[in-house]
Amino acid sequence: MITMSEQKPLILVSNDDGINAPGIRTLVTLMKQLGDVVVVAPSSPQSGMGHAITIASPLRLYEVDLFSGTPAYECSGTPADCVKLAKHYVLKERVPDLVVSGINHGSNTSISVLYSGTMSAAIEAAIEGIPAIGFSLCDYAHNADFTHTHDHILKIAGHALENGIPKGVALNVNFPAKSDQPLQEIRVCRQADARWQEEFDERKDPYGRNYFWMAGKFVNNDTGEDTDEFALSQNCTSVVPCQLDLTDYKNMETLKGWNLNARTQTLLDSQATEPTPQTS
Amino acid sequence: MITMSEQKPLILVSNDDGINAPGIRTLVTLMKQLGDVVVVAPSSPQSGMGHAITIASPLRLYEVDLFSGTPAYECSGTPADCVKLAKHYVLKERVPDLVVSGINHGSNTSISVLYSGTMSAAIEAAIEGIPAIGFSLCDYAHNADFTHTHDHILKIAGHALENGIPKGVALNVNFPAKSDQPLQEIRVCRQADARWQEEFDERKDPYGRNYFWMAGKFVNNDTGEDTDEFALSQNCTSVVPCQLDLTDYKNMETLKGWNLNARTQTLLDSQATEPTPQTS
Repeated sequence: MITMSEQKPLILVSNDDGINAPGIRTLVTLMKQLGDVVVVAPSSPQSGMGHAITIASPLRLYEVDLFSGTPAYECSGTPADCVKLAKHYVLKERVPDLVVSGINHGSNTSISVLYSGTMSAAIEAAIEGIPAIGFSLCDYAHNADFTHTHDHILKIAGHALENGIPKGVALNVNFPAKSDQPLQEIRVCRQADARWQEEFDERKDPYGRNYFWMAGKFVNNDTGEDTDEFALSQNCTSVVPCQLDLTDYKNMETLKGWNLNARTQTLLDSQATEPTPQTS
Repeated sequence: MITMSEQKPLILVSNDDGINAPGIRTLVTLMKQLGDVVVVAPSSPQSGMGHAITIASPLRLYEVDLFSGTPAYECSGTPADCVKLAKHYVLKERVPDLVVSGINHGSNTSISVLYSGTMSAAIEAAIEGIPAIGFSLCDYAHNADFTHTHDHILKIAGHALENGIPKGVALNVNFPAKSDQPLQEIRVCRQADARWQEEFDERKDPYGRNYFWMAGKFVNNDTGEDTDEFALSQNCTSVVPCQLDLTDYKNMETLKGWNLNARTQTLLDSQATEPTPQTS
């Protein structure tokens, strides 16, 4: 259904802020310098969707003209849905040479990679064996300034197009917010061991019932200088290679040492308060 | 707000099939043999939600009496939301000794761990430094038979309560569906290198507009005998230790070899069709 030149690389662009976000507009314009572009992105913002997919309801897909004639589709689903629909329905006969996601309005460093819709689009592509990169800017503003990121985006995406990305890996790229200082170099990093410290803002609705807003602050106790967080603190661009295999190999032996099959239920015997249930 | 005995361990139970699913009922009854139980689970099914969190809308939390007097709350959000709300609002003054999620109606082996709401509850707890286990049965039926899993669940949870789980690790436990053959031993495994091959079922609604159902089949080309998929094929229970750090350390050196900072834009120069965009 989409006709494209054969000699140029094919680049699929998605995001999680939705197809109308300024960040994806910047990314599309940049990618058009590197190849033929197709956009499949969520109709509405999907931040915090993690690697969600839509299986309990149907998906909608509509062609839109938002990028000066670049083929583009808005999808009712999540970023991972967008990549799946793009690959198996929109592009059918051609596998993209690269999938890029973003530019996200907001950081996706450290543990945030697990909650990130931006990265879920990239990881979904990596599962399919396609080179994939998620780009995020540490600035949540709708009118964030992306101009300082252009050169690094073209360098990283250009290199991925020419040389590929190791199989089963998606790149998580984060940029510091635009400041008075010039952006420094690109650094390959590990994911910082930091996390969100949640707080819930409890309110009452007009009918007197409680509801909660999730809020919280980012806490980084990782003092390493090889982390994504440290690179950003130095006004550098961070690149973390992310893998799809969650197995903690170093702890497999620890678990084998548990001898679970030999275990007798001492705790159970001493604390039993009711019989083991029989599922009907 | 919840009064519990001081000497018994505190166990938080969640899931992704929703608080009315039979699987969580079995898990609650089993956990009551090991300690004091509190349930915080989604109001409605959340399968495929991955590690989604709710940040764009408020959350609701209602106390319910569904488990013979066991304190229980249904939450309008995702499994990860449930664990966050439980920790920071429901339990406030006491950190659970264990978080268990499930028993999921359906497999969460291999790459499915990334899409799994069941595992996202366990991973959220592991992020908070709490021992955590997700339990899944390879049977999607609402009236699935869980009876053969009881002994293994009590062994694994009992061991975790007595000895903890390595920090930053969540256990992904899968059981084969009940069959005529007796369940074999518990095996510590790695995540199989398998994936879902999607197909989209395209239909027309009564108004003539297209919509899509995501479907697909599970494809396992991993021939290793140390995987979760292999263990299940042998009618064994699989236990995969899952880590929170996605960094692919072995490929960090590969990426450093890219020399991105020295890269000149040959591809860009030869293919440039329009100027670099200026974000307004």
